Amino acid sequence: MKSEKIFKNLVVILVEPQGTINVGSIARLCANFSVSELRIVSPKCDVFSLDTKKMALKGFKYIVNCEIYKTLFDAINDCDIVLASSGRRESTAELKQDSICNAIKWIEGFQKINKLAFVFGREDRGLTNKELLLSQKIFQIDTNNNYPSINLSHAVSIVLYEASKLSNSANLNKNLKYEIASPAQIEICFSEIEKMLKRVGYLLNHTSNAKMTKFRTFINRAKTSKHELNVIRGIVHQINWALSNSKKN
Amino acid sequence: MKSEKIFKNLVVILVEPQGTINVGSIARLCANFSVSELRIVSPKCDVFSLDTKKMALKGFKYIVNCEIYKTLFDAINDCDIVLASSGRRESTAELKQDSICNAIKWIEGFQKINKLAFVFGREDRGLTNKELLLSQKIFQIDTNNNYPSINLSHAVSIVLYEASKLSNSANLNKNLKYEIASPAQIEICFSEIEKMLKRVGYLLNHTSNAKMTKFRTFINRAKTSKHELNVIRGIVHQINWALSNSKKN
Repeated sequence: MKSEKIFKNLVVILVEPQGTINVGSIARLCANFSVSELRIVSPKCDVFSLDTKKMALKGFKYIVNCEIYKTLFDAINDCDIVLASSGRRESTAELKQDSICNAIKWIEGFQKINKLAFVFGREDRGLTNKELLLSQKIFQIDTNNNYPSINLSHAVSIVLYEASKLSNSANLNKNLKYEIASPAQIEICFSEIEKMLKRVGYLLNHTSNAKMTKFRTFINRAKTSKHELNVIRGIVHQINWALSNSKKN
Repeated sequence: MKSEKIFKNLVVILVEPQGTINVGSIARLCANFSVSELRIVSPKCDVFSLDTKKMALKGFKYIVNCEIYKTLFDAINDCDIVLASSGRRESTAELKQDSICNAIKWIEGFQKINKLAFVFGREDRGLTNKELLLSQKIFQIDTNNNYPSINLSHAVSIVLYEASKLSNSANLNKNLKYEIASPAQIEICFSEIEKMLKRVGYLLNHTSNAKMTKFRTFINRAKTSKHELNVIRGIVHQINWALSNSKKN
């Protein structure tokens, strides 16, 4: 933990955690691994309980300062790079996932990330597909196929340990500098695309979800930059303008 | 977890654990990471309690099959490579320690280890110097210097995760084949040396501990082989023989 980090702020986001022991343990891990912020989306337990405090020890300040959000989208709104944890074993076409090890290598391709976030789902059923797709990278922790289900706080410990290895020294190729689009920007762009595609009749309400998922996977896989995303948005706006004007004339 | 492992059996040893939640969590991790055996030295809590079972889930079989030992020396007796976890920040001349990352690289220098063991100490004060010196390698997990103290079960999760990366494919240099002396062999050899050195008046009872520690550190650092250790023992036996005979004559 000596050299300068690729990221300025490390954010841990828990979605609907159910166990006070887990939340407390994770707060302690945040202190162990110099996390900047702990954020919780709709907690399903009393995060300020005595159990949490007992487990958090010196990490209890992360609980005291913890921001509570209604949705994951709100929680990642200001984050630049977001990775989401999956308990699934296999990638699918829509939900491609990597090992945490490869995900960390992927992060090394960026420079000076302001807010790097790791998202962890519910103890019993993880994150929904919709939540997973809000991230730019989905990862899993390789475990025994006969019993892959790892406890939430232990998943967090492994991820924070791997993230602590990330340092600027790992990335000497200055040409890789890359302003990747943030999940929030992607989300806004996609809602615009979806609206427009419905407007032109390409998408129907009942099939739009599946089709949009495919587009989104592609955008994430392509490491789309802020600039590229702006180009896409420009096209969408232009199409909308043309549609409005063609109706008028 | 697909390729063949450098080690045949992975053994986790806990010395005097105090918390049932920790013991249960560690049993679950044993199942997650295909550990062969969980061993416990003088547990300070009820390892068969309901709390342990609740946390262990499918890993409870590790508790059921767990061997209990009186001393760490007994627990590592049949292990070939033993690494011990330290919560200290700095190496000292006697207790040189590496990051877990480097310790794993060190293991990659061996071939087909039969029993590879990781030892973890008490929640509040870790392992004693004497216990640390029973291992061939002492490691620590790099954490925030302001709050380095990581929970026991989270330390185990990080170590097992790192160990799961070990595979034979990592070691293509067949010349490195090396029959390292086991901790039990080293221990026996050292008690013989110590006895002999006291006999010849080189060591005094009240200083022998400190001096023997220095020798031991050297033997571990040198990656002493079984053959080399046998040479040392042969010398000791010869000296003892000569001493007995010179007395008689």
